[in-house]
Amino acid sequence: MAPAIHRRIVLARRPVGPAREDDFRIEERPTPRPGQGQMLVRNVFIPLDPGMRPAIGDRTAGVREFEPAKVGSLVGYLTVGQVEVSNVEGFAPGDWVTDYLRWQEYALSDGSTARKITETRLPPSTAVGILGVPGLSAYFGLRDLGAAKPGETVLVTSAAGAVGSAAGQIGKIIGCRVVGVAGGPEKCAWVRDELGFDAVIDHKATPDLAAAIEAACPDGVDVLFDNVGNAVIDAVLPLMRTHGRIVICGQTADYDTPVAERHGVRNTTHFVSRRLTMRGLFVHDFALRFDAAIAEMASWVLEGRLKHREVIERGFETLPAAFVRLFRGDTYGRLLVEVG
Amino acid sequence: MAPAIHRRIVLARRPVGPAREDDFRIEERPTPRPGQGQMLVRNVFIPLDPGMRPAIGDRTAGVREFEPAKVGSLVGYLTVGQVEVSNVEGFAPGDWVTDYLRWQEYALSDGSTARKITETRLPPSTAVGILGVPGLSAYFGLRDLGAAKPGETVLVTSAAGAVGSAAGQIGKIIGCRVVGVAGGPEKCAWVRDELGFDAVIDHKATPDLAAAIEAACPDGVDVLFDNVGNAVIDAVLPLMRTHGRIVICGQTADYDTPVAERHGVRNTTHFVSRRLTMRGLFVHDFALRFDAAIAEMASWVLEGRLKHREVIERGFETLPAAFVRLFRGDTYGRLLVEVG
Repeated sequence: MAPAIHRRIVLARRPVGPAREDDFRIEERPTPRPGQGQMLVRNVFIPLDPGMRPAIGDRTAGVREFEPAKVGSLVGYLTVGQVEVSNVEGFAPGDWVTDYLRWQEYALSDGSTARKITETRLPPSTAVGILGVPGLSAYFGLRDLGAAKPGETVLVTSAAGAVGSAAGQIGKIIGCRVVGVAGGPEKCAWVRDELGFDAVIDHKATPDLAAAIEAACPDGVDVLFDNVGNAVIDAVLPLMRTHGRIVICGQTADYDTPVAERHGVRNTTHFVSRRLTMRGLFVHDFALRFDAAIAEMASWVLEGRLKHREVIERGFETLPAAFVRLFRGDTYGRLLVEVG
Repeated sequence: MAPAIHRRIVLARRPVGPAREDDFRIEERPTPRPGQGQMLVRNVFIPLDPGMRPAIGDRTAGVREFEPAKVGSLVGYLTVGQVEVSNVEGFAPGDWVTDYLRWQEYALSDGSTARKITETRLPPSTAVGILGVPGLSAYFGLRDLGAAKPGETVLVTSAAGAVGSAAGQIGKIIGCRVVGVAGGPEKCAWVRDELGFDAVIDHKATPDLAAAIEAACPDGVDVLFDNVGNAVIDAVLPLMRTHGRIVICGQTADYDTPVAERHGVRNTTHFVSRRLTMRGLFVHDFALRFDAAIAEMASWVLEGRLKHREVIERGFETLPAAFVRLFRGDTYGRLLVEVG
């Protein structure tokens, strides 16, 4: 039985530089009752995602078509929850779902964007992790946009992150040579020793990242799978092989930075001389193939070929601090808050 | 009968900023005699191409795999010439050919890179113009890399140039709405009134290029066919439509500029939000389809649907000055020197 009052988190202030905890505010609200065609969902796992940063920033840091969140409005995107009461056909109490229910303890849904979690061989939290947007981004980003082929060299940045760790392992499953970039000895050891990357570069211990990548990829890079942003792309461009592909998956280093202060990509002459292709990944373009990809990745996980790491914090009130920590780079794997 | 002595032009000094006439030097050499498997070709038309700039610059301005021309060595690439003496099967005196015979009045060729000009409905100079690399770059850049479709909006920079003017007209033949960017009223009038672009922006009369492009492309840009470089790409990125394509064909504004001083592309977040693709064009990747494209384009020229403009200077010794003028933007169309 849902409580009469539940908590939600709204934007208190629009961050200009790095996001801070006090950019957010916890509020209490009466828990709503589902009407006809609605269901009440209790949020259980809320994943933290750097991609939320542009939506709470000002217009110049974001993109024209996404109106930034208003101060005072609810923040967050996708969550994992359990249906409490349902007046929606196809959903019953106890069902696990993913839906865009944002940072609140309880929410109504009309079911239109809810996905029932049908892959039950793995815990429900994986539906927003290795079997969710991060895993699917790795899968379609590397296979479809990157078109990685056996024997090619794949360079993955944020290699200890939820997306990067999956992308590198999928590269190994395809038969590529995979080099990762991560920050700090703990992450690097995990990437190399646990995940089986062929080499890993600790960018925190490397004064010249481009030189380190060149040393680790002596024949050049066929696919750059990037989660960091412009500075990395610019450094790797001179190392790309002919017909190389750059997949822009995330831009963690740039989300927090006003456009005018961002690193600008200068080494673009290589696009012509090496016939490079750079594409931005929007994983929902592949939605019709999600079920097949989820089943394939779940099998890889169960076979031990695709490892993942979940860092689960507890308590609804920890969400803002967890979000801020994302950008400090001191966590790795998929960061979630278990809220219920 | 070839003269005993002929002239050639070598690199006197490696330009750092804009190329200057005295970066080049004219030398005299004995005219060679063709041995077995060789032919002597008299160069007749030498096209001027901004793409030669990186090859005579220093390494940092160019690309790793093209060793820059050495000071004292012959410069130039493709030429149009007539066979004088031939010991090569398949080539006879009087044949018109294109070959990589560089800036010299006479040259030996073993025929391996020579192409006999078989499209005789148009004059031989067109083999390095509308039916050569410029025309083919427009054709394959817009159709294959740009994948321009009827009804889409195509933005072409350097629209009065040899490539841009062809790209825009091919866009019209495909059924696109075509907007050009050119510099100065004379070029703009030609692009709009003679070539039939739907709109043209005079970048010399426009304080805010991005605003002018937005006004001319109110629904956004599906294909950017760029010949200019990073600053243009950066300005147009926020105006690109979902699934838009950027074709990097030329980078005239950046060739002359050391990497560190180039404009950096910052607006890369749009790659993800709009699922953009950016590709570099290397036209020789399409070599197997050149003959078919040349025949199709020659027909368009003869039907009056594909116009082109050749500016032909006369005299071998005018080559350095003509090359320097390319970068001043005071010519338009295809610039050639008739040397013989």
